[in-house]
Amino acid sequence: MSMTTERVREILSWYAGNTPGTLANLHRILSHGRLGGTGKLVILPVDQGFEHGPGRSFAPNPAGYDPRYHFQLALDAGCNAHAAPLGSIEEAAVEYAGQLPLILKLNNSDSLYSGSDPVPALNASVADALRLGASAVGFTIYPGSAGRNTMYEELRAVAAEAKAAGLVVVVWSYPRGSGLSKEGQTAVDVVAYAAQIAAQLGAHIIKVKPPAAHIESDAARAALEAAGVPLDALADRVRHVVQSAFAGRRIVIFSGGAAKGTEQVLEENRQTALGGGFGTIMGRNSFQRPHDEAVDLLHAVMDIHASTHPG
Amino acid sequence: MSMTTERVREILSWYAGNTPGTLANLHRILSHGRLGGTGKLVILPVDQGFEHGPGRSFAPNPAGYDPRYHFQLALDAGCNAHAAPLGSIEEAAVEYAGQLPLILKLNNSDSLYSGSDPVPALNASVADALRLGASAVGFTIYPGSAGRNTMYEELRAVAAEAKAAGLVVVVWSYPRGSGLSKEGQTAVDVVAYAAQIAAQLGAHIIKVKPPAAHIESDAARAALEAAGVPLDALADRVRHVVQSAFAGRRIVIFSGGAAKGTEQVLEENRQTALGGGFGTIMGRNSFQRPHDEAVDLLHAVMDIHASTHPG
Amino acid sequence: MSMTTERVREILSWYAGNTPGTLANLHRILSHGRLGGTGKLVILPVDQGFEHGPGRSFAPNPAGYDPRYHFQLALDAGCNAHAAPLGSIEEAAVEYAGQLPLILKLNNSDSLYSGSDPVPALNASVADALRLGASAVGFTIYPGSAGRNTMYEELRAVAAEAKAAGLVVVVWSYPRGSGLSKEGQTAVDVVAYAAQIAAQLGAHIIKVKPPAAHIESDAARAALEAAGVPLDALADRVRHVVQSAFAGRRIVIFSGGAAKGTEQVLEENRQTALGGGFGTIMGRNSFQRPHDEAVDLLHAVMDIHASTHPG
Amino acid sequence: MSMTTERVREILSWYAGNTPGTLANLHRILSHGRLGGTGKLVILPVDQGFEHGPGRSFAPNPAGYDPRYHFQLALDAGCNAHAAPLGSIEEAAVEYAGQLPLILKLNNSDSLYSGSDPVPALNASVADALRLGASAVGFTIYPGSAGRNTMYEELRAVAAEAKAAGLVVVVWSYPRGSGLSKEGQTAVDVVAYAAQIAAQLGAHIIKVKPPAAHIESDAARAALEAAGVPLDALADRVRHVVQSAFAGRRIVIFSGGAAKGTEQVLEENRQTALGGGFGTIMGRNSFQRPHDEAVDLLHAVMDIHASTHPG
Amino acid sequence: MSMTTERVREILSWYAGNTPGTLANLHRILSHGRLGGTGKLVILPVDQGFEHGPGRSFAPNPAGYDPRYHFQLALDAGCNAHAAPLGSIEEAAVEYAGQLPLILKLNNSDSLYSGSDPVPALNASVADALRLGASAVGFTIYPGSAGRNTMYEELRAVAAEAKAAGLVVVVWSYPRGSGLSKEGQTAVDVVAYAAQIAAQLGAHIIKVKPPAAHIESDAARAALEAAGVPLDALADRVRHVVQSAFAGRRIVIFSGGAAKGTEQVLEENRQTALGGGFGTIMGRNSFQRPHDEAVDLLHAVMDIHASTHPG
Repeated sequence: MSMTTERVREILSWYAGNTPGTLANLHRILSHGRLGGTGKLVILPVDQGFEHGPGRSFAPNPAGYDPRYHFQLALDAGCNAHAAPLGSIEEAAVEYAGQLPLILKLNNSDSLYSGSDPVPALNASVADALRLGASAVGFTIYPGSAGRNTMYEELRAVAAEAKAAGLVVVVWSYPRGSGLSKEGQTAVDVVAYAAQIAAQLGAHIIKVKPPAAHIESDAARAALEAAGVPLDALADRVRHVVQSAFAGRRIVIFSGGAAKGTEQVLEENRQTALGGGFGTIMGRNSFQRPHDEAVDLLHAVMDIHASTHPG
Repeated sequence: MSMTTERVREILSWYAGNTPGTLANLHRILSHGRLGGTGKLVILPVDQGFEHGPGRSFAPNPAGYDPRYHFQLALDAGCNAHAAPLGSIEEAAVEYAGQLPLILKLNNSDSLYSGSDPVPALNASVADALRLGASAVGFTIYPGSAGRNTMYEELRAVAAEAKAAGLVVVVWSYPRGSGLSKEGQTAVDVVAYAAQIAAQLGAHIIKVKPPAAHIESDAARAALEAAGVPLDALADRVRHVVQSAFAGRRIVIFSGGAAKGTEQVLEENRQTALGGGFGTIMGRNSFQRPHDEAVDLLHAVMDIHASTHPG
Repeated sequence: MSMTTERVREILSWYAGNTPGTLANLHRILSHGRLGGTGKLVILPVDQGFEHGPGRSFAPNPAGYDPRYHFQLALDAGCNAHAAPLGSIEEAAVEYAGQLPLILKLNNSDSLYSGSDPVPALNASVADALRLGASAVGFTIYPGSAGRNTMYEELRAVAAEAKAAGLVVVVWSYPRGSGLSKEGQTAVDVVAYAAQIAAQLGAHIIKVKPPAAHIESDAARAALEAAGVPLDALADRVRHVVQSAFAGRRIVIFSGGAAKGTEQVLEENRQTALGGGFGTIMGRNSFQRPHDEAVDLLHAVMDIHASTHPG
Repeated sequence: MSMTTERVREILSWYAGNTPGTLANLHRILSHGRLGGTGKLVILPVDQGFEHGPGRSFAPNPAGYDPRYHFQLALDAGCNAHAAPLGSIEEAAVEYAGQLPLILKLNNSDSLYSGSDPVPALNASVADALRLGASAVGFTIYPGSAGRNTMYEELRAVAAEAKAAGLVVVVWSYPRGSGLSKEGQTAVDVVAYAAQIAAQLGAHIIKVKPPAAHIESDAARAALEAAGVPLDALADRVRHVVQSAFAGRRIVIFSGGAAKGTEQVLEENRQTALGGGFGTIMGRNSFQRPHDEAVDLLHAVMDIHASTHPG
Repeated sequence: MSMTTERVREILSWYAGNTPGTLANLHRILSHGRLGGTGKLVILPVDQGFEHGPGRSFAPNPAGYDPRYHFQLALDAGCNAHAAPLGSIEEAAVEYAGQLPLILKLNNSDSLYSGSDPVPALNASVADALRLGASAVGFTIYPGSAGRNTMYEELRAVAAEAKAAGLVVVVWSYPRGSGLSKEGQTAVDVVAYAAQIAAQLGAHIIKVKPPAAHIESDAARAALEAAGVPLDALADRVRHVVQSAFAGRRIVIFSGGAAKGTEQVLEENRQTALGGGFGTIMGRNSFQRPHDEAVDLLHAVMDIHASTHPG
C-alpha cells in the first residue's frame, strides 16, 4: 500500500459514495508507477491485435505478439496501469500477478466486418476481471451510433456490477456512427458531449480523443460563441472537454491515436496537460517502437504531465 | 418529518393501495420546500447535459457544469425535488444527503444520434435510486414512437420494482415519433392521451408539455366538439389534460420547455395553475439564468401556484 | 361464498385439472351479479381510455374519466366482473376491495402509433393481479399479425403463471394484421379460428367479435360447404364459433363493439344467445350512456341471456 | 407395467445414457396399444385445429371439435400415443388420465398469417407436459427456414429440460422456408437431411414426410449417384432416410399428410414399412373419417407395420 | 493417468491461471493416442452430417452413418480426441465411455438455408458436455460475418462456464461473411487475424484453415511488407498465423478441408508442421476413406507431425 498524497485524497473525494473497494482500486491506479501520487496518469492500452489485426499491430515490433511483452513494458516505463482484452490478460496474469494495476477491456470491435453503426462485442465480464485480479474494467461506447443504447445499457449493467465488486470503471467514449459526419467524430462539441455522456453513465475515468477545432452542432456553436468560450488552441478545447465532465471532477485522459513522430506526441501531451487533462492512454506510439525508445518516450510524456500546471 | 396538511392527506388518499414506503416518499416530496403542504410542486430537472450536450446547456451559466450547483439551486429556491441522471446524482449525493428529495432519472436520450422513432437508453436502475437515497425514479416515454411498447414495458418493470421498494414513480410523457405530426406532439388531444397513458401505466406523478390548440385526431375532435369541451384558453386545455388523468386524481405537472422571457414563463404558469395543474418542472429557464435571478423566478412561479385557485 | 348451481358445476367440470384456486375464481365470476349461477356472463370492460384516448372515450359521459365510476356502474348493473388496465384498477381497488370480481387487463395498444402488424404492450403482470385482488387476468392476441408469435408466447407465460396462482385467464382474440383482409377480421371462419387458437393456448374465457357472413379462406369455405354448415344467420355463425372452442366446452362471449342504438344491441345479443354464446362484454355501449340508461340496457341484455335457450 | 419384449429392449439400448425416466416413457410408448412390443408405432396427432383452423379440420366429422373424441379414437384404435396442443390436452387429461401415452405438442403454427420463413410459436412448456401427465413432448422444426436457428435453439432448451425430467422428445422435422424450392420440401436428400438434423439435435423419435424422388442438392445427388444408392421406389428412399438417422438407431416415423383414399394410405405404409420405417403418425386420414372407418383403417395400417419385414 | 512429458508440462505452463480441471483435461487430450506426450495433436472431427448433409458425407463410406464408427476410427488410429455434435455423442457415449477424449461441438450450421452473414445454431451446452463425459467443448465463430458479435458473446458465455467446470475450449475460427471477399476467407492476414481473435476470446485450442497467399487488407499488407515477413511458402504463412496466437503460446491446429489425394494431405501437413503448427483436425479425408486406408493415412500424418521440427 502506498502513501496517500493530498492530490490523490482530493481526487478520491470527487468519488464519495463509491464503495471502499472502488476507492481502493482507484487509489491503486493513481498511486502506481512513475506518476504515482501526482494525480496524473499514463496508461498502456493494447487491444490493437483484436481491433486492427495482429500483423498491422505487431509486425513493426514482433516482441508484441506475446501479451507478456506489454505487461513488462508498462512495468518498465512505470505506467499507472495496463489495459488489454481477456485473452491477453489471461495469458500473462499469473506471471505478473500483483505487479501492476490491470484494466480488463470488456468489449472490443474487430475490423473484419465494419458497419456504419458499430457496436463492440462484449467479450469479457466483471467476473473475469475479479478472477484475473484486475483493478478496473474498460468499456467502449460509440455515441452517434444507432446502436448507442445497446452500449449504454450494457455499460450500465457492467458498471453497477463492477462498482458493487469494488472495481473502477474506465470508459472509452469514441463518437462514431451514422449520426455524425467523419469530421464530427473529433469535433470539440462532440468530444465534450462524449465526455459528459460517459460521466453521466457513471464512469470513474473517461478516455476521449484530442478534440479538433471543428464544431458539429449549430446549436452548440451558437451557445459556445454567445458565451465566448475560447476554442482555438488544443489546450482551450481540452479545457472545455474537461469542464464538460462535471467541471473537472471526473478524471479525463486523452488517447494517443495512430503512430506518429515523437515531437508530435510530446506537443499533443503538452497541450492536453495545459488544458487540464489528467494524462494519456497511449498504445501504438509505445509498443510499436523498440522497447527502450518506447520507455524513453513514455518517460518524456510522464514528465510533461507531472510538470505542467493547467493554464 | 413534516406535518401533514389536509391537502396532502387528500392527495395521498388517491394513491391508496400503494406501499407505505411510496406514500412516505410522496409525502416527502409534497411537504418539502417553499410549496410544502400546498399540494403544488415545482421541481428542478437537469438532464440537459445528457439530452442536449454540455456546451448548449451550461455555457450560458458555467456554474452548471458542476452537478452540485443544481442541488444547491433547488435547495436555495425551495423546490420540492431535484431530478437528474445517474452521474450527476452520484457526484453530489453524499454532499447533499438528506437535504432534499431526489428523483433519479432512469432513462435518457442523447442527441448525437436521432431517429424518427426514439427510445431512450435505460441508464440507471431502481437499485441505483435506493443506493443513492432518491425518493423517486423518473422515466420518459414517447407515445407515438414505433418503439413505444419497449418503453411501456420497461416502465412496467421499473414501476413494479420501484413501488415494491417504496419509491415514487414520475413519468415524463412526451408524444413523439412517426405516429404523429410535428404539430401533433403538443396537440391538446395528444397531450391528454399522453397523460392517460402514463396514468394507466401506473405513474404517481405525470409530467407533460403545455397543450397547444391543435387537435391531431379527427375522432377526438368529433367527440370533444360534440361534448362542447372548451379548449380555447391554455387553462381550458390544461383542465382537459388534468381530467384525462383519472379526473384529476393523479398529480399532473407541466414542463417549462426552451428558455424564454420571464413574463412568458409566469403567464404560462398562471394558465396551468388556473386549469388545475399541480405545478411545473422547469429546467433551462432556471439553471441558465444567473443564480439569484433563477431563485427569484422560481419563487415567483411558486407564488403563482400557491395562490391560484383552479377556475 | 355463493351457492353452486348445477349449471356452474357443469361448466366447472369442463375445466377439470385446473388448480382449485382457478376453479374458485371462475366460480366467483360465474356466481356474481344479476346473472350469477345461470352460466351466462355480462362483463363491463373499460380500456378505451388507453386504447382510443380519453376524450374520445369519456367526453360523451365525463363521469367516466374517473375509474371509480366504472366499478360503481358494474356493481349497480350487477355485471359478473369489471375489466380494466393497471392504472384504473390501482386507482379504485382499495375503495371497491372485495365488492366485485376484477379482470386485470395485462396488455393494451394505444392508437397514437399504429402499424400493420400490431402487438400490444405488456403493461401489467400476474403479480399485479394478485396484489390488486383480481380474480382474472385479461390478455389480447391478434391472430393474423406478423407479431402473433410474440403474443402467443407472452400469453403462454402469463397463463402458466396465472393458473399456478389460482387466477382465471380471459383472452380477447381479435384477428388483425397483414395476414388478413379488413373484411377478414370478422369473417366467420376467422372468428371461429380465433376462438380455437385461444382455446388451444389455454384460455378459460374467450372473447371474440360477432362473426360476419364473409368467409376469408377458400379451404375453410370448401370444408364448411361440403359439410353443409348453416352460416346465414348470426345465431348460426355464433354456433359455429362456439363449437370451434372445444365443442362448446369453453366459455365464449361476444364483444359489443362501437356504440350503437339500443335495439341493435339487444338484437345482437338475442342472436348470440340463440347461437349458444355465453354472454357479452360490453364497454362503449354501457359507459358512454348516462348511468341509469346504461344500467337499464345492461339489465335488458342480461335478461336476454338469462331467458334465451340456444336454438 | 407391460412386459419388455426383446425388440423393445434392443431399441432402448440405442438410447443408453438417457435417464431411467426417459427410458421408462419410451418403453411406455413402445409397449402401449395394438403394436405394443413390436417396435413399431402408430400415433394419432391432432393439431390441425390450430394449424389449419377448426372448420377445415373438423367439419367433415364434427365429433372432432371435442378434444376428447381424439383421445377416445386413439384408445379405441390401439394407437401407441396421442399427440395434441396444450388446450386439447388440458381439456381431456383428467378424464383420460393414465389410459394412454400423451405427447404434448409444444409449438405450433396457425395459418392466419404465413411468411416465407416460418417459425412456430412456443405454446407450451415441459412443465405443462409434466403437470398434464404426458410421456413426451413434441416439437416442430423447419429446416430451410431463415428462422431455423431459433427453432433449433428452442428445441435444445426444451430437449435438455425434457430429458432431465424423464420425458421423451419427439421431433417433427419438416423442411420449409426460403432456403428450399417447393419441390425441395419433400426431396429425398432434404428429408434425409431433416432426419439427420433432428437426430443430431437429440430427438428420440423423428417424424418426417415420405420422401419424394426429387433431389434438391447437386452435391448430394453427385454423392448418392457415385455410391449407387437406390432411390427409385419409396421403400428405397425411406431406407436412405432411416439410415440417415444414425444408421437406423433412431426411431423414424412417417406422416400421413393430406386426407386421401384408403388404398393410397395402405400402399404408402407398405412402402415405408418395407424401407425400414418404424410406423406412421396419421391425423387427417384418421379423424376426418367416421369413427369406425377410422379404427378399421388404423388397424389395417398397424397390421402392415406389424407384418412387414424391411426388405 | 498418463505420465507428463516435459513438452506437455511446457504447454500447460502457457495456460497458467486456468482451473486444475481444465489443465487436467488439456493434459488428457495432449497425452492420449499415438501422439500422446509429443505436444502435437491429430483430432477426428465429424460434424459433416449436420453441416453438409448425411448423403454427401457418408454415402462414400456408409459405415459412417453410425456415429459409433467414428469413435472406433479415432480409437483405432490413435487420434488425440474425437469431436462431434450432440446427437452423435449421445448415441455412442455410453459404449465408449472413458476410452478417448471427446470434444462436444456446441454450435453448428446446416446447409439447407444459407445467408450471407452466417451464425451457427447453439445446439448443445456445457452441461451436456459434462453429462456426456466430454473433455472439451468446441465452438465455431465466423469473423467477417455481420453476426460475429452474437457468436463472440455466445462464446464468452460458453467459455466462462466451461472453464469454471474444468473443460477445455476449442474454437473453430473460420472467417466468412459479408465483410470479406471469397478469397479473403483464407487470406493469410485474415487467418492470422482469426487466430488472434480466438486467442483473445479465451480459446485454449484454435482451429483455422491453412492460410493462402492472398492478403485481404491493404493496411495489413503494408505492415507485413514493411517488416519483411516471409509469406511465400505455406510453412511461412503458418508461422505467421501461429505467431499471431500469442507468439505461439496457444495451440493452433489446421483443418484438412475437402477430401483430396493422399499426397496432397501429407504435403499440407508437412508444411503446417514445418511452420510450427501443432497438428491437424481432419474429417472428410479420414472417414470417407475405407477404415484401414483412413487409419494408414492418419498414422502417416501423425508421423509427419511427430518427426518435423519447425523450421
